[in-house]
Amino acid sequence: MFRAIPLFNGDPSNPGKDTLKLLLTKHHFGETKMDKITIGPMPYMSVMPTLLVGANVKGKANYMTAAWATVACLAPPMVCVAINKTRFTAKGIEENKSFSLNVPSAKHVVETDHCGLVSGAHDDKSKVFKSFYGKLKTAPLAEECPVNIECKLFKSVDCGSHLLYIGEVIEIHVDKACATDGKPDTEKLDPIMYAQAAYWKVGKPIDKAFSAGKKYLKK
Amino acid sequence: MFRAIPLFNGDPSNPGKDTLKLLLTKHHFGETKMDKITIGPMPYMSVMPTLLVGANVKGKANYMTAAWATVACLAPPMVCVAINKTRFTAKGIEENKSFSLNVPSAKHVVETDHCGLVSGAHDDKSKVFKSFYGKLKTAPLAEECPVNIECKLFKSVDCGSHLLYIGEVIEIHVDKACATDGKPDTEKLDPIMYAQAAYWKVGKPIDKAFSAGKKYLKK
Repeated sequence: MFRAIPLFNGDPSNPGKDTLKLLLTKHHFGETKMDKITIGPMPYMSVMPTLLVGANVKGKANYMTAAWATVACLAPPMVCVAINKTRFTAKGIEENKSFSLNVPSAKHVVETDHCGLVSGAHDDKSKVFKSFYGKLKTAPLAEECPVNIECKLFKSVDCGSHLLYIGEVIEIHVDKACATDGKPDTEKLDPIMYAQAAYWKVGKPIDKAFSAGKKYLKK
Repeated sequence: MFRAIPLFNGDPSNPGKDTLKLLLTKHHFGETKMDKITIGPMPYMSVMPTLLVGANVKGKANYMTAAWATVACLAPPMVCVAINKTRFTAKGIEENKSFSLNVPSAKHVVETDHCGLVSGAHDDKSKVFKSFYGKLKTAPLAEECPVNIECKLFKSVDCGSHLLYIGEVIEIHVDKACATDGKPDTEKLDPIMYAQAAYWKVGKPIDKAFSAGKKYLKK
């Protein structure tokens, strides 16, 4: 089905270095031949949320930038976030069995990125955002972030370099100005998307979910 | 620190029904008083990727729309996706210990949403996308999607209604036309973001990650 063809796309004096395996198939996609490359295993995801993971470490609030997070369960509601084992934040989560996920707005991109550049082990990040506490008294919530998710640790899964922390959502706080009908409003939040080592705005709506697909059978 | 104030914001003849607890704090955020509402526990995430989970079920390719996915580990590279236990796709993952995550472009939003509206148990979805196979012979990859991630099941975590499937990334296929310097290019991919029961385009870049934060200390 596939033919692997080595291509020289780098330094011609060192053909092996930048060689890509180009996969050509006999299939046709639309009017054009499928032309895919393989890039090897990597921790890739198309788009991700930019968040601040809040944890108390030795009694002090700390925030760490993270994008490797999503929803893990509907009932009970759970979220998960992958954190490097060596991170200061991991110590706080283990210590208190709780953490928070905070959604910063685009206007706080500098503060947000700062929390990913420096470690709480060396720099006090407790003043980058103002902290408040909700139902869980040990998961600091960043006031400036329009959404704050309080999480009680359900399980941590050892995946290798990273622990995947799965937390039950205990409460969600939302800036009143960023809510519509009692729920977080994406456009009002102006959240930061993460992809390809860069931060992005949310663009235009394309269509409604659980609805757009009804056009498929009519095609 | 907090005062919970019940508010009537719904039917005045049934004040309990739509009551929101409004949390007012004594803190000040910028020039305005922090004004947050609590919305209770829910499976919330600010922005998420829209993906098609590919799995062979009883030897036939099937694709399921999913947004509850992210990166789970750097080394080895892993991704995870939450899937309802009752889903047809879950059967295929358990059967073959493998699955794929496929990144559709905005132009395929109708096909993508369709795969979330109908179940493979009742409707044959093997023809919605053309399938090809890579290193794992049991994880169907959707040709029309510009990125295809082949995953070998590492672990499934029972979270309640959903299983969180964690898979080791074995190979990634990228449309040559959507790659820059051998990596998936977000703007060329034109991926579909999911938030608030809707699909969105990726917007404008805000800043570079691991760089924007350097301005923080200069402030």
